[in-house]
Amino acid sequence: MRTLKLTISYDGYEYHGWQVQPGAPTVQGALAGVIEAVTGEKLLPQGSGRTDAGVHALAQVASFQTESPIPPENFRIVLNDRLPPAIRVLRVEEAAAGFHARHSARAKSYEYRIYRGDICPPFLVRYVTHYPYPLDERSMAEAAPLVAGQHDFTSFAAADSDRTHRLQDADSAPPRHVGNVRTIFESRLERQGDLLVYRVRGDGFLHHMVRNLAGTFLLVGKGTLAPADVRRILELRDRSAAGPTAPASGLFLVAVEY
Amino acid sequence: MRTLKLTISYDGYEYHGWQVQPGAPTVQGALAGVIEAVTGEKLLPQGSGRTDAGVHALAQVASFQTESPIPPENFRIVLNDRLPPAIRVLRVEEAAAGFHARHSARAKSYEYRIYRGDICPPFLVRYVTHYPYPLDERSMAEAAPLVAGQHDFTSFAAADSDRTHRLQDADSAPPRHVGNVRTIFESRLERQGDLLVYRVRGDGFLHHMVRNLAGTFLLVGKGTLAPADVRRILELRDRSAAGPTAPASGLFLVAVEY
Repeated sequence: MRTLKLTISYDGYEYHGWQVQPGAPTVQGALAGVIEAVTGEKLLPQGSGRTDAGVHALAQVASFQTESPIPPENFRIVLNDRLPPAIRVLRVEEAAAGFHARHSARAKSYEYRIYRGDICPPFLVRYVTHYPYPLDERSMAEAAPLVAGQHDFTSFAAADSDRTHRLQDADSAPPRHVGNVRTIFESRLERQGDLLVYRVRGDGFLHHMVRNLAGTFLLVGKGTLAPADVRRILELRDRSAAGPTAPASGLFLVAVEY
Repeated sequence: MRTLKLTISYDGYEYHGWQVQPGAPTVQGALAGVIEAVTGEKLLPQGSGRTDAGVHALAQVASFQTESPIPPENFRIVLNDRLPPAIRVLRVEEAAAGFHARHSARAKSYEYRIYRGDICPPFLVRYVTHYPYPLDERSMAEAAPLVAGQHDFTSFAAADSDRTHRLQDADSAPPRHVGNVRTIFESRLERQGDLLVYRVRGDGFLHHMVRNLAGTFLLVGKGTLAPADVRRILELRDRSAAGPTAPASGLFLVAVEY
């Protein structure tokens, strides 16, 4: 039995998220289908975490165990031959026994992309959130680093019940994370041409956490909140204190570190 | 009666080309629909030329006459409010009486984009032609400028009958162009990261001309043709002498000059 590690990029616009679900196209479902077609094995590749419908991945990681003897590079080629162009396997590697894309993850990076131009180019519309109205970007850039460090991120977690929440919190590896406490290593917001990009890297993320952070920084940009309010909201541990969940289209899973 | 000039960008992947046709979504049809909704006038905006299904536009130009008193900038806003995000009106301007997007055009520029990386990113797949195999790009870059100047481009025109051909040749303003003679002001091929980009600017283009040139340069890259063969093919005035029509996805109408 070998353990394989897949690095995958996908256009989330085409899929109902990562996680397999009956009657809807999902990235995990599409991968399981082609893996079965190639190896004859019915299995579910495990992702480093779920991504919601419309969320993109530059480099999601998945792992699975297989009896197949196909060498990694050939595996990559046959999978890409059969996958739709909206999902690309970038790398296939042999992993140590016991490697698990979710449990073994040490850090993940996300980007949230806000298009600031008046008119959103048709070629970008699926891959950004378009916000052409005035924003105090300096205040937003000031607010972003305030969530760095170890915090209880309940205020920025999806408002599901605790139980549902834990189920949906695919990022948390139980032995490392306690409740909704996560460590953010880096959190910054910067201009890149017409894009305002929020970059965040941490040891794990709660469901909707990056989109809720982005939605809150947008409230700072609009002047509804002051930068310092972000720390206050964090301390309240109350989802209703933070901003709304920003749209899925702007979110990219950029990297998973092991 | 006013004449309005529209500059439009669109994702051609979503449409069966520019030109209105029954039962299929087209860019011209979508524009006509929203113009009617806004002004109550049934009219067809005239494009600077047709683009085929799957061909994109960074800046197509269209013109129409209207009795509507709506100021240009408001016109732009209401059109964009009603158009799908795959079509964006970048500018609306008052034009002189007699201005016609096709007849008044002096020059047009196109880009043909070939993605050279091994794996085509899911976010680019609609907007490039993916060619990951070896190409002698130096020979291609040598061949590209050989079509500059005034030539009879019959070898690179769509192989329709003469009559169909003239009908489809939406670029030709009869008073300026004689038969299949066109003047190319600039023709060059260069690398831009993982993209190999062919840029061409001329006083008019025959149907499929840019895609047939790109398909021929690809044959030069593969070694099937030598760069100098491009001049020989041009002189033959025989469509069957040139390379195949390259896929629509890589083609962008970049600008129209008046």
